[in-house]
This record gives sequence, structure tokens and C-alpha cells, in this order.
Amino acid sequence: MTKTIAYVLYPGLTALDLIGPLTVTAALDGEYESVVVARDLAALDTDAAVRLGATATFDQVTAPHVVVVPGGTAGTFAACADEELLRWLRTASAAAEVTASVCTGSLVLGAAGLLEGRRATTHWGFRHLLPKFGAVAVAERWVRDGDVLTAAGVSAGIDMALQLVRELAGEQAARLSQLVIEYDPEPPLGPIDWSEVDTAAFAPFGEAALREGLADHPELLARLTG
Amino acid sequence: MTKTIAYVLYPGLTALDLIGPLTVTAALDGEYESVVVARDLAALDTDAAVRLGATATFDQVTAPHVVVVPGGTAGTFAACADEELLRWLRTASAAAEVTASVCTGSLVLGAAGLLEGRRATTHWGFRHLLPKFGAVAVAERWVRDGDVLTAAGVSAGIDMALQLVRELAGEQAARLSQLVIEYDPEPPLGPIDWSEVDTAAFAPFGEAALREGLADHPELLARLTG
Repeated sequence: MTKTIAYVLYPGLTALDLIGPLTVTAALDGEYESVVVARDLAALDTDAAVRLGATATFDQVTAPHVVVVPGGTAGTFAACADEELLRWLRTASAAAEVTASVCTGSLVLGAAGLLEGRRATTHWGFRHLLPKFGAVAVAERWVRDGDVLTAAGVSAGIDMALQLVRELAGEQAARLSQLVIEYDPEPPLGPIDWSEVDTAAFAPFGEAALREGLADHPELLARLTG
Repeated sequence: MTKTIAYVLYPGLTALDLIGPLTVTAALDGEYESVVVARDLAALDTDAAVRLGATATFDQVTAPHVVVVPGGTAGTFAACADEELLRWLRTASAAAEVTASVCTGSLVLGAAGLLEGRRATTHWGFRHLLPKFGAVAVAERWVRDGDVLTAAGVSAGIDMALQLVRELAGEQAARLSQLVIEYDPEPPLGPIDWSEVDTAAFAPFGEAALREGLADHPELLARLTG
């Protein structure tokens, strides 16, 4: 039987959080099928100048083998208060072998109550929010705790998905996915120098995203900014 | 005046080829605007289980500062014979400061006559096709020859876009884009070991994609498979 890897699409997310890992797992052979699942099939705005359209609805995919929640900024905080999405996610996660996230997608897992007592990661600019959902925040590229696999910011979803493919289908399959997407990174300015990163300068941007996304949900906003 | 970075969307492309660099350049400040341009605004199928929708039409974006053509497999070969797309691309490229491609998007540049005598790259599995368009094929992560900037396969578009941001807006801007997408790669199995890659095993897949994409264009098919 085909095993479904379901990527959750919601308005305003960061497209690369979804498209990076989707492209990795889509290279898996017929045993696995990667789908994008949303409330309906309408193309939704993202946080960049592109719209994404799902290929399945929440109603159609109730027991995926893997569920992956991408992140973003304001749109993701709004998703943290989207009861329909959270309800689907709880049900899907309970049935799934692996519940995964990319970037601030882990905060959606947290809002669904799926990170209590677990080690998890997220985008570097929002890591301080993980404990608000009972999680233990760690600064790693990806973190596995039991059946929950969380990735750091945006592009970390590619590394996490290769790790997922390795776990699901073995090293040869992971090498093939890596080769298909020619993932042999050469950042022109080298790796990030974390000693130079000014997280305080990012804080106002992060807080503005929280306030925008949770404008209609003052209780959750207070919990996350308090 | 805002400078437009235009990503070309066409049916069947590889979504990551477009979304990777788009996410990098979208982090640029107000001087640059990244848009996705297509024949119309309908969401189009890609080669994975997701649809992408443009935010501008070819008619609306006639003189971008930068034009970027993503790649793919059969859909990209069909684009190589899409006269409306090629006509728009020639006009846009003539006005642009930089004409760029990701993966087999360079073959679309070639089909538009934009690679004659130029050094260029593409996905490793299709590099042998570049000389069919008068280009000199090179095996690098990205290649600049004059105002043409081509990237290797799929994920190489992220590295290329960081280089583009560095050239357009300086190192600080490139470091900020890199930080926003947390591009600090850790492929779980390390870099690709090119000595282990079996290009011959890939050839039938590549040829099938050519035949599918160019089924209605036997002359171009013969030129590329001959």
C-alpha cells in the first residue's frame, strides 16, 4: 500500500519550507506518495510573490504515514490559532509514523499540543517561543525526539527531508534524492557565522509577525509575547 | 524606481528551481521586487504534487532588471519549443541587466538563442545538451558569462541567487538573505560523491523526458537527441 507523506499548506506560509522537503521526498519511488494537503484546492498566497495550490484536501488525507508542517511568519502564527487545521493535525499525527516540521512549523505542532516535553527546533529567530509550548528548544539543524522530527529555519527542511528519506527508505534512496536535486551546497559566502548574528535586531520583526498573525487571538498572543 | 526580478513560471517545471532563488531574492529590501511571471495567473501543475500561481503576466512585466528561468524535465523541454515564452524571454533578456537560469532552465535560454558562444551550466544529467545550443558546458555550481548567470541542478539555484544578491546589493545583503532562510547546509550524508554517480544510468530517464516534452516538436527533438 502506498504510504502518504502529507505537506500541510495554509495561507501565508514560506513556500520554500514546503517546496524544499517536498522535492526531496517526491524523488522517492512508488512506495511513497508526497501530497500537499489544505482545506481546499484553491491556490493560496504565501509570504513571497507566488501562490501555492494543494493537490488534496484535509478530508481526503486522514491517515498519512508522515505529516510535515512548514513554517513562515505572520501566516504561521495565524495557523497556530486555526482550530480546523490543529484538529486535522492532531488526528493525522496520532496515526502517523513521523510528525515533522520545518522552521516555525514546529510552533504549529506546539499549538496542537504535540511538543510537550519534547526536544525540538525552529528558525533561529523564534527559538525562544518553543518553551511556551512545553518543548525543550535546541539549536540543531534537525532534531528527532520519538516520532517528532523538527528542522531549523526554511532551508533546513531540505536537510531534514534527506534525513527522513534515509530513515524511511535507506541511504541509497537518500543519496538518489540528493543527486536528483543536485544538493551539493556552495553558499557563495560560506556557512553562516553565528557569532556575527544579531538576534536582538531581529526581535522587533519577529514580534510584529506575532502581533499580525495573532491579532484576533489575544490570549495566545499574550502567552507567546509574555 | 523599483527593479523587478522576474521568475518565469510555465507548466511542469520543478517548483524548487523557482522557489529556492525566489525566497532568497524576496528578502532584498524595497529597491528590488521579486515577481513570478507567466502567461496568466492560473495555478499551474509542476513536476511534484503542488501547483504554482504567478503574480504577474508576461504582458505586465516587459523590462525586468533580472529574469530567471527555472528548469525541470518534460515541462522544460516543452518550454524550449513554446514560441510565446521564448519571444517574451528574448525581449526581457535584451532589456535585463542579468539573465539567469536554474537547472535545465539554461536549455530554455539556449532555445531562445541566448547562449551562443557562452559558458553555461545546467543539471548534471543534461549537461551534454548545452553544446546543441552553441554553449560551452561547464561543471560548476554557477557560471557567469557576461550578463548570463546559469546554475547547476535544482538546489543550485539557492547558491546562484545568493551570488546574484551579492552582485546586486552587496555582501551584507547576501548575508542577510542567507540568514533569513537559515542557509547553513548540513546534508546528512555529506556532499555528493561525484565519482560514485552513474550518469549512464540516468540517460534513459533524461531521454524519456526529452521525448515526452518535445512529442509535438520532432525537429527540436531530433536536434537534441541526435
